[in-house]
Amino acid sequence: MGRIAAAGFESRTYLIEHMDIQQYMTEVGQRARAASRAMARADTAVKNRALSLIAVAIRRDADLLRAANQVDLETARANGLAPAMLDRLTLSEQAIATMIAGLEQIVALPDPIGEISNMKYRPTGIQVGQMRVPLGVIGIIYEARPNVTVDAAGLCIKSGNATILRGGSEAHHCNQALARLVQEGLAGAGLPQDAVQVVDTTDRAAVGALITMPQYVDVIVPRGGKGLIERLIKEATVPMIKHLDGICHVYIDDQADLDKAVKIAFNAKCHRYGTCNTMETLLVARAVAPQVLPQLAKLYQGKEVELRADDEARAILAGYPHLAAASEEDWRTEYLAAILAVKVVADVDEAIAHINTYSSQHTDSIVTENHSRAMRFLREVDSASVMINASTRFADGFEFGLGAEIGISNDKLHARGPVGLEGLTSLKYVVFGHGEVRE
Amino acid sequence: MGRIAAAGFESRTYLIEHMDIQQYMTEVGQRARAASRAMARADTAVKNRALSLIAVAIRRDADLLRAANQVDLETARANGLAPAMLDRLTLSEQAIATMIAGLEQIVALPDPIGEISNMKYRPTGIQVGQMRVPLGVIGIIYEARPNVTVDAAGLCIKSGNATILRGGSEAHHCNQALARLVQEGLAGAGLPQDAVQVVDTTDRAAVGALITMPQYVDVIVPRGGKGLIERLIKEATVPMIKHLDGICHVYIDDQADLDKAVKIAFNAKCHRYGTCNTMETLLVARAVAPQVLPQLAKLYQGKEVELRADDEARAILAGYPHLAAASEEDWRTEYLAAILAVKVVADVDEAIAHINTYSSQHTDSIVTENHSRAMRFLREVDSASVMINASTRFADGFEFGLGAEIGISNDKLHARGPVGLEGLTSLKYVVFGHGEVRE
Repeated sequence: MGRIAAAGFESRTYLIEHMDIQQYMTEVGQRARAASRAMARADTAVKNRALSLIAVAIRRDADLLRAANQVDLETARANGLAPAMLDRLTLSEQAIATMIAGLEQIVALPDPIGEISNMKYRPTGIQVGQMRVPLGVIGIIYEARPNVTVDAAGLCIKSGNATILRGGSEAHHCNQALARLVQEGLAGAGLPQDAVQVVDTTDRAAVGALITMPQYVDVIVPRGGKGLIERLIKEATVPMIKHLDGICHVYIDDQADLDKAVKIAFNAKCHRYGTCNTMETLLVARAVAPQVLPQLAKLYQGKEVELRADDEARAILAGYPHLAAASEEDWRTEYLAAILAVKVVADVDEAIAHINTYSSQHTDSIVTENHSRAMRFLREVDSASVMINASTRFADGFEFGLGAEIGISNDKLHARGPVGLEGLTSLKYVVFGHGEVRE
Repeated sequence: MGRIAAAGFESRTYLIEHMDIQQYMTEVGQRARAASRAMARADTAVKNRALSLIAVAIRRDADLLRAANQVDLETARANGLAPAMLDRLTLSEQAIATMIAGLEQIVALPDPIGEISNMKYRPTGIQVGQMRVPLGVIGIIYEARPNVTVDAAGLCIKSGNATILRGGSEAHHCNQALARLVQEGLAGAGLPQDAVQVVDTTDRAAVGALITMPQYVDVIVPRGGKGLIERLIKEATVPMIKHLDGICHVYIDDQADLDKAVKIAFNAKCHRYGTCNTMETLLVARAVAPQVLPQLAKLYQGKEVELRADDEARAILAGYPHLAAASEEDWRTEYLAAILAVKVVADVDEAIAHINTYSSQHTDSIVTENHSRAMRFLREVDSASVMINASTRFADGFEFGLGAEIGISNDKLHARGPVGLEGLTSLKYVVFGHGEVRE
């Protein structure tokens, strides 16, 4: 049945792969731009209705979705895809339930669009403030994770944007099946189906086209590994909301509560290795290093974490079974693995200097009970998320209370840190007058 | 005396023009990046002290500044610079007084940096909010207007940024003289002189270098004509806060108060012709066009405004001495002159559709007493500033209450509309914890 269900999704693909990709993407862009006008006007109730209908359709067609996913999985296995990638590609019953729950969460979030703030009278008599409006068309480029298709579509619908989704080619059948359900939900609510388009070709030229048509696409949100993002940065003429990597630090100050310090430094490294908010370098103040490092080593040893330490830390850690000497390269490395760089520093000044030199400006945390040092760290560390006495793992849209997350930005312009619905909007100035003119 | 005073400013220029420009700009960039760290940490009082000292120094050296300006003016006249350009280049006594007043206004503005907002407790126990921080290094590229040197330096100092200024080569002597006074003020307040650097070469390659070093420059604010901006867009790899042009509209609805409509449509066109917020196209609802256009024509005739009208408007305006037929090209043209495109439309829908097609998304205004139409216009017109019953000429940082303006953005990302101190800042997430870890 999987093959039969999937066959229907292939006919259009077949046609497109025999069209010119540039022409196809131009048409996709034009349709998105047209749909974005209707989305910007859509009421909250209408957008919520579309999201609910999509959730209903996904629940109804869960078996069909899993069948389409099977086709993708079989091809991927035949092509020798790595087990970790296969895992991400798999649309389990649980994954489908999570997608549905995600849509319901987005329904429950307040609508950011149309909010008017800061209306103030000016001496001329006019009243000036700002209105939150959609960005327009969002392009999203991601790897073979079908759940992103629905999460991203949901966030773009709620924020009044049209979106063009380009998922990894390994998830092509499943993404096309999801696209049909999303478009069914849009149509059911009276919204244009073109508000969410899933690019219907596995040709890589489609990505090249998507990132170079600023006339149709207002911003690109790339989700994927550093290699993908680096390539997109080189070629894109459309602005991006992005982060390249997460080289996150925890600094344990000599006035830290060491119990908190040990808990945080263990959690920040070992809660999950593959996430961008995982600690990659631990900085410890000289005065407490002999106390705190051995305690931490016991915990890390239980997880077989390799420690790459500077000379001072190595002397303290002597005898640790997975110990290596750190080179400068280690300060610049995002391991995404059970490896941690460790460095002893004199004080908060040296910690801030090290972080502002080597951090990827993603997330950095200080552990201290000293108020002045905490406040200096907060102000002077130039990263998207700066924390006091908390694990870097909290740097996440859900944990920060954004409700959902389209991605994380390490850039300073527009959105910085976890990006939720607000990051997909812009503020325009609005003026209420009574016939005023400039004198 | 002008020549003697100016001679001192030339020696360093001489050296630089015999250096490699790329190497020189790299050094400028590195110094700016280093200075930006100190600027980000600087207290409000210190930044205000620097601004006040600069104002004092400019007042003290007004004669020297005017002498340096004379050197520029003589060269410019010898090179046959257009009178309008000479006018902008001239540093009159009045212009110096305005620069000083501008600095004093910036001192009086609240410091945006360090403000923490929206600190909310999350169920995990952490408290999450946002802190306003400087962008880092701002590059400003402008034409031969020496006053921009001081205005831009002032805004960057107050917002805790370092800046690299590249003014038009015609103002080179005057800009270098101003740079010395700005740096004197910075030093007097204990801030690094490199926080404001005025590029000390007239070589155009300096601009090319400035806009392609994202490692040293966080954002470029170009101020100048469309030609300059278009060239920068093509070459820049550093993001820009910019607008290309201002094709602004006034729509007179059939439920407008016609007295207000006439006042607004006259002011929006005739208050000043050369500004980006000047109306370039007037849209009039069919039902009131026969009443309102003849009234307006009387006023426009007094200013010899040329009207380029569609067929319907031309029929109504028959006999107007400066009447021409509008082509589609007129809907896309920023005249910056005593010329106005005029079109009769059916209703607010056609007006919104026309504006969203031809507007440069700068500033558009509706004149109506109908609440529902006003609100639809406000929400659906996709421009940086959208107005009800007010002249488009109000789209300006001072008029909007920003206190000062570094430029206007027609982009949707980051800052939109007039850009003041806030547009030169970013928000980072801050987290206050008590030892929390992710479960």
